[in-house]
Amino acid sequence: MEFKAIGYVKTHARKLPRHWSVSDVEGVLELLPEYVPGLRNIEVGQKIMVLFHFHKSPAFDESYFFQTPPNRNESRGVFSICSPVRPNPIGLSVVEVLDKKDHRITVKNIDMIDGTPILDIKPWITIEQDCPSS
Amino acid sequence: MEFKAIGYVKTHARKLPRHWSVSDVEGVLELLPEYVPGLRNIEVGQKIMVLFHFHKSPAFDESYFFQTPPNRNESRGVFSICSPVRPNPIGLSVVEVLDKKDHRITVKNIDMIDGTPILDIKPWITIEQDCPSS
Repeated sequence: MEFKAIGYVKTHARKLPRHWSVSDVEGVLELLPEYVPGLRNIEVGQKIMVLFHFHKSPAFDESYFFQTPPNRNESRGVFSICSPVRPNPIGLSVVEVLDKKDHRITVKNIDMIDGTPILDIKPWITIEQDCPSS
Repeated sequence: MEFKAIGYVKTHARKLPRHWSVSDVEGVLELLPEYVPGLRNIEVGQKIMVLFHFHKSPAFDESYFFQTPPNRNESRGVFSICSPVRPNPIGLSVVEVLDKKDHRITVKNIDMIDGTPILDIKPWITIEQDCPSS
């Protein structure tokens, strides 16, 4: 199946935290202008999920089935870790909206590198609550 | 960018809840046998995130930028709802592991239709906690 970028992550940070949950880095989700209408109802202060392409990852092969995460001492199966090297290199980060203007959403909690292609934005749903928007 | 199925969702349910957060439906994530090694550390009782392809969705066009979710009275921007009709038709569900055997993971909280192509499995991270596996 084929997917296309709906925009790109912009950030000046050159050193990124290993995960969004420990990141205070700010950046911008710069969507292609044609997608602006889809951003209605995204509000400052909300947390949103960003799906993106790990576009710099090496191709997956069987040597990557077990990987040792940066903050662990043991290797784990690839589907139990957040590694960017996976059979389908799709990443997911939860970021907080700081500002929204036209096709640009300023966010914090960035852990993606500058230029990362964005695939989708979804509402953030916690396990305890019903989806507010399904 | 191109992605490929790593397996398929199997369920006997013919009527599915509108969202995993309100679903008790059981089913099986049947991975292709080659991906079994990657399932190490997935344990019964865990919640896991499943990324999948909304393979039955119509192609996205501008008439889908605003949609009215089933349990709402107002239309919302596509990036603020969980609709299967999106610029990149990628879905995300959080399911609980009931059993794991070889390449088959039995889960509950299914909201995907039988035959749905699976793209990725990731650990479920709540907003309050550090990623346990990054």
